[in-house]
Amino acid sequence: MKKLNVGMIGYGFMGRAHSNAFRKVSNFFDLGYKPVLKAACARDEAKIKTFADKWGYESIETDWRKLLERKDIDVVDICAPNNLHKEIAIAASKAGKMILCEKPLAMNGVEGEAMVKEVEKSKIPNMVWYNYRRVPAVTLAKQLINEGKLGKIFHFRAKFLQDWTISADLPQGGTGLWRLDINAAGSGVTGDLLAHCIDTAIWLNGPIVKVTAMTETFIKERKHTLTGKVEPVGIDDACAFLARFANGSLATFESTRYARGHKAEYTFEINGENASIFWDLHDLHRMEYFEHRDEGRLRGWRSIHVTDGDHPYMDKWWVPGLQIGYEHSFVHHVADFIDGLDKNKPAMPDFKEALVTQYICDAVLKSAKTGDWEDVKQVKP
Amino acid sequence: MKKLNVGMIGYGFMGRAHSNAFRKVSNFFDLGYKPVLKAACARDEAKIKTFADKWGYESIETDWRKLLERKDIDVVDICAPNNLHKEIAIAASKAGKMILCEKPLAMNGVEGEAMVKEVEKSKIPNMVWYNYRRVPAVTLAKQLINEGKLGKIFHFRAKFLQDWTISADLPQGGTGLWRLDINAAGSGVTGDLLAHCIDTAIWLNGPIVKVTAMTETFIKERKHTLTGKVEPVGIDDACAFLARFANGSLATFESTRYARGHKAEYTFEINGENASIFWDLHDLHRMEYFEHRDEGRLRGWRSIHVTDGDHPYMDKWWVPGLQIGYEHSFVHHVADFIDGLDKNKPAMPDFKEALVTQYICDAVLKSAKTGDWEDVKQVKP
Amino acid sequence: MKKLNVGMIGYGFMGRAHSNAFRKVSNFFDLGYKPVLKAACARDEAKIKTFADKWGYESIETDWRKLLERKDIDVVDICAPNNLHKEIAIAASKAGKMILCEKPLAMNGVEGEAMVKEVEKSKIPNMVWYNYRRVPAVTLAKQLINEGKLGKIFHFRAKFLQDWTISADLPQGGTGLWRLDINAAGSGVTGDLLAHCIDTAIWLNGPIVKVTAMTETFIKERKHTLTGKVEPVGIDDACAFLARFANGSLATFESTRYARGHKAEYTFEINGENASIFWDLHDLHRMEYFEHRDEGRLRGWRSIHVTDGDHPYMDKWWVPGLQIGYEHSFVHHVADFIDGLDKNKPAMPDFKEALVTQYICDAVLKSAKTGDWEDVKQVKP
Amino acid sequence: MKKLNVGMIGYGFMGRAHSNAFRKVSNFFDLGYKPVLKAACARDEAKIKTFADKWGYESIETDWRKLLERKDIDVVDICAPNNLHKEIAIAASKAGKMILCEKPLAMNGVEGEAMVKEVEKSKIPNMVWYNYRRVPAVTLAKQLINEGKLGKIFHFRAKFLQDWTISADLPQGGTGLWRLDINAAGSGVTGDLLAHCIDTAIWLNGPIVKVTAMTETFIKERKHTLTGKVEPVGIDDACAFLARFANGSLATFESTRYARGHKAEYTFEINGENASIFWDLHDLHRMEYFEHRDEGRLRGWRSIHVTDGDHPYMDKWWVPGLQIGYEHSFVHHVADFIDGLDKNKPAMPDFKEALVTQYICDAVLKSAKTGDWEDVKQVKP
Repeated sequence: MKKLNVGMIGYGFMGRAHSNAFRKVSNFFDLGYKPVLKAACARDEAKIKTFADKWGYESIETDWRKLLERKDIDVVDICAPNNLHKEIAIAASKAGKMILCEKPLAMNGVEGEAMVKEVEKSKIPNMVWYNYRRVPAVTLAKQLINEGKLGKIFHFRAKFLQDWTISADLPQGGTGLWRLDINAAGSGVTGDLLAHCIDTAIWLNGPIVKVTAMTETFIKERKHTLTGKVEPVGIDDACAFLARFANGSLATFESTRYARGHKAEYTFEINGENASIFWDLHDLHRMEYFEHRDEGRLRGWRSIHVTDGDHPYMDKWWVPGLQIGYEHSFVHHVADFIDGLDKNKPAMPDFKEALVTQYICDAVLKSAKTGDWEDVKQVKP
Repeated sequence: MKKLNVGMIGYGFMGRAHSNAFRKVSNFFDLGYKPVLKAACARDEAKIKTFADKWGYESIETDWRKLLERKDIDVVDICAPNNLHKEIAIAASKAGKMILCEKPLAMNGVEGEAMVKEVEKSKIPNMVWYNYRRVPAVTLAKQLINEGKLGKIFHFRAKFLQDWTISADLPQGGTGLWRLDINAAGSGVTGDLLAHCIDTAIWLNGPIVKVTAMTETFIKERKHTLTGKVEPVGIDDACAFLARFANGSLATFESTRYARGHKAEYTFEINGENASIFWDLHDLHRMEYFEHRDEGRLRGWRSIHVTDGDHPYMDKWWVPGLQIGYEHSFVHHVADFIDGLDKNKPAMPDFKEALVTQYICDAVLKSAKTGDWEDVKQVKP
Repeated sequence: MKKLNVGMIGYGFMGRAHSNAFRKVSNFFDLGYKPVLKAACARDEAKIKTFADKWGYESIETDWRKLLERKDIDVVDICAPNNLHKEIAIAASKAGKMILCEKPLAMNGVEGEAMVKEVEKSKIPNMVWYNYRRVPAVTLAKQLINEGKLGKIFHFRAKFLQDWTISADLPQGGTGLWRLDINAAGSGVTGDLLAHCIDTAIWLNGPIVKVTAMTETFIKERKHTLTGKVEPVGIDDACAFLARFANGSLATFESTRYARGHKAEYTFEINGENASIFWDLHDLHRMEYFEHRDEGRLRGWRSIHVTDGDHPYMDKWWVPGLQIGYEHSFVHHVADFIDGLDKNKPAMPDFKEALVTQYICDAVLKSAKTGDWEDVKQVKP
Repeated sequence: MKKLNVGMIGYGFMGRAHSNAFRKVSNFFDLGYKPVLKAACARDEAKIKTFADKWGYESIETDWRKLLERKDIDVVDICAPNNLHKEIAIAASKAGKMILCEKPLAMNGVEGEAMVKEVEKSKIPNMVWYNYRRVPAVTLAKQLINEGKLGKIFHFRAKFLQDWTISADLPQGGTGLWRLDINAAGSGVTGDLLAHCIDTAIWLNGPIVKVTAMTETFIKERKHTLTGKVEPVGIDDACAFLARFANGSLATFESTRYARGHKAEYTFEINGENASIFWDLHDLHRMEYFEHRDEGRLRGWRSIHVTDGDHPYMDKWWVPGLQIGYEHSFVHHVADFIDGLDKNKPAMPDFKEALVTQYICDAVLKSAKTGDWEDVKQVKP
């Protein structure tokens, strides 16, 4: 079997999630390429060494530029903080490496445009890790919508609720906390959490044309772990917005890290003329489905345990009733990426499709400042 | 409209539930008779006076024999403890009064037989308050089974779990606590709670032919409120049994008052070849339904909110989505009783049908002593 | 016991719900007054006669002005469509009748102000039927918030989803359908459904200061039952808005009649620093509660079955585990109104407090037109 | 790091689940040994070759006796059908190989005794794959019980419901279907499914002293894939039993493959004086917990999302809110086995502890024949 040599940049949470996916995918999927963990890269030599040993990477690098120079690397996986995505991705593209980039694509639309422009020039395969598309229940939702089961869509609503930053003692910046640092993250919940909701939304329900938003930073100052000083918090702790889709449906979106009782409660619901779908990350192996064409007295929300062989991806795993978890969405992501290479039919979202989400985030953040409805910049086909 | 003069015996929990039903039924149902709260009867004059005032009974009696002598009483409602059912019912029958008797029918099958014999002779209308048959979701289950939606039945399982007697300080006997006194109640959870499960089971799934059971009395002695002394507890605190139905299906039944966290958790599930049903008294306005004939990838348990106009009884109440509660099952019970009078087609369960449950309870209690499988005495058609 | 003679105006859905409450309240609550169904009033003599018979009203009227002239009426209950509230209420106040007015208070804030002004002058007791405050689980939420259990509040989110107007064949106007007629209703889901959400929200979480909204009318024309012609639909089929509360918390609100699978799904959630609460009308006897102060590994949303004696109002009903339903919220409403009379401490919301909701609805509808954030007019204390 | 060379016997469902566990464990756990997939063994050379390639086994064998002769194998993993467990395990023990044996331990207690005797002589490390003990929620239940959180235990109830054998067209015997063949499996749901329930039950609640059971074979004859002929079905399709624990608590157990709507619905509930626990394999990342010591009006079943760092095993995986799945219980099993080696403190259940479950299954199957309560043979300490 052909090998796909992976160069990983980063060793944090996503570094682990992706490494696990690369390692597992060939045990469960029949694919044209087998990923090989060739090199792991980060500035801290001791840490990247430990990481590489743990996961079986064959070598390490401490400078991503060096990694890009290596001939034995086929694909670069960017798991560095958001503020590094653009620079690394453009360099990787110029070096002829395929790119898997952690979401969000970039700090903002302007950066994203530059990245898209570059990969359109180099024509190298590229993809962004919006992994939730590949949770089997979410993929099933996509199937149903594509088949027209829902009919005309009236409503979409999504939220992504967490509660891990309520304490004022939590610092910002540094390992594991760069998501709270505006300079590293670009935004708060908007880019981190709503980006996921938006990616799923546009995949399922098409383009968003305009939005009105509000954001809030509940805790105005936090100690910064890099400077050691108390500094203003630049990110949005919470964000909610109303939106109108091109298909005429209305939407509400909300995300916060101040919703006590919710760890990673990403839910969406879509209401169509004939059927509705609800999904919840906290029970990701289920899909709630309402079918209006059922006999009247027997209509009810069906709680579908998405673990059967005829559910997306599930023929690869165990037997009906035995659930998979969070990490499997990444395995599916890699499987589809490889399958796309093999069939020369790129898996989505590539940089260009991920730019759509970036534009929506930009409009949301702008509206939160202006108080106006903002039109969403559309990506040209 | 014709009047139906009610004579109520008792003023406790069931006295209230039934009175409420008599008062409300004509506001919601179109019936040939309108119940009139004619007289309430109990030994304690002060208490029955207060009760009668509260509910609008026109008069009181302190001796049920007096009540039976009155010409202006059409129907007697027996809400006295179990040990009085037989005597009152037989006297009422002889006095030509229709009878509504609280469940269980009697202390045991022998008493029940005598009651059935008497009403078969007098031919007066008679009914037992197994009210759960008339929760709309339960009635819907019956409809579906009668229509053959489930196909061949393989399994039935029911439980009725409570936790109110865990404290050893709780006394036995007296007002509100006669259910813990073997002399007043006849048995513990078997007659009080399992009788409900059994009544529903045989209504939905036909005759039970044999059982094997175990019972337990966790707290062996309790203060008796009538004697003031600590006395042995004669009732079963918990009872579980296995059963075989005549149709070949297997069943498990369990009841206890020692299941911490459950107030009145009566649930049943029935598994058929093609479909399954689950119901839970704690959410009595819902029915869970699984339909195997649904498209494979979209099969799931449907949570049906049984509040639509095409659900049993629900066209009489509010609008879809607005739930009714526990008390409404009694209103439906009265409505069906009156409807049966009007159409000369008695509503069930009458004494004879309630005797079936009595026989099963007898077999269960016997098996708990012998350790053997016991055959259930069958009621002759 | 003192009597409280009721004059009911209307005989529709709310006429039934209120009549039931008047009839039942004295059976379950110990109060200083006992409601008497004195007269029912509507223009259609046959219909009001049938209604009065069904519910036991002693007399009928076909002109509400006549009703107001009667000496034997203490309290007038306004269950007429929204466009009649103001006129009847002002006349009732001038006639010295106490007033129970169905929600929303009026067609808009201007009408509401006139009504408030009048009752402030006449000083007659007045109340608006925002009944959901008195669902025991909702009242429990209020208790917990008042006690400070939640700590600082960060988020409030509410939605009221229905699906009964999706069919384009449904006409507008006339009996049962006046809610779809802009002239009778004043607005669509905003006044009908969001008004409930808003009333609960401000009761639990204090004043709302500004909003930004969007509305949509999915079906632009419907046959009008009064004119027989296809006419433009003037109401909002759906409405969503973002809001900021005076206490610094953020909110999202949404209502629609196009959410397939939802009959009357009114839910709210409130996230505080220390605890969170969720409630759902479809299971109104439950409250979901998250307590952050629980031991870490044992934290979870508690599903509280609000049927115990120490839950609000529940000592009046049955025993733990036996649920009440939708109609009981109206019984509690009447009980509190009477209790307020008795103690000379008016039950809320009175007209003035209901005007707050009216102002918010006005701001929402205005914002939906302007696209701007709109300040909410505040009611002077 | 020290290596632990694994020799796998079998390549079916369990072969995959275990291989995945061996491959992953070192990426997530810090352990003294690292498993190496040394050899895979099965009679069918083509199939075992494919399997070995897929999973990265370094070599293959087609005779398990050969495997046992190899010096480079440290531990043998027996994933062959039940009727081969005894012979292979005893030979492995004699060959000095550590043994991981798929559950149930053996065909019956007599076989199990021989196996226990052998490993007690050889003193080689041995363990049985009762993996559900190591689902984090189940391990958490064990912690709570050990800490005395539940107080005196009154009730235990477990069921394991499936529906995959309802069709009469399903054959018995052969690959994937040996579980339906009495000669390969030893029993039906009793050894396959109830064994899991029993293992968890005795781990959590101590010894079972006696049982009364019923079994049923709904479909009496099925085509046998090995003989090609229609032959009697020897296994139990369904089994239910009542049990008494040594600690005085009562139990009900039930398993069937004829419960329409359930794929692998393994649930258990345990009711203690002070708290109760419920768990469901279909949502294995959750534990339902009721704490009676909570404030009265705020008591409710807590739905605990067992994904926090302070939950058993969960510090090794992702972040709070992100669930793991079925396969992870096997990873934990291997981790604990290795940890036991490292610390010279064997992980449980070893053969001896698994023999307890075997004795209970024997008593259950005997009772189903005799109709009597049967005492359970106890394992000597």
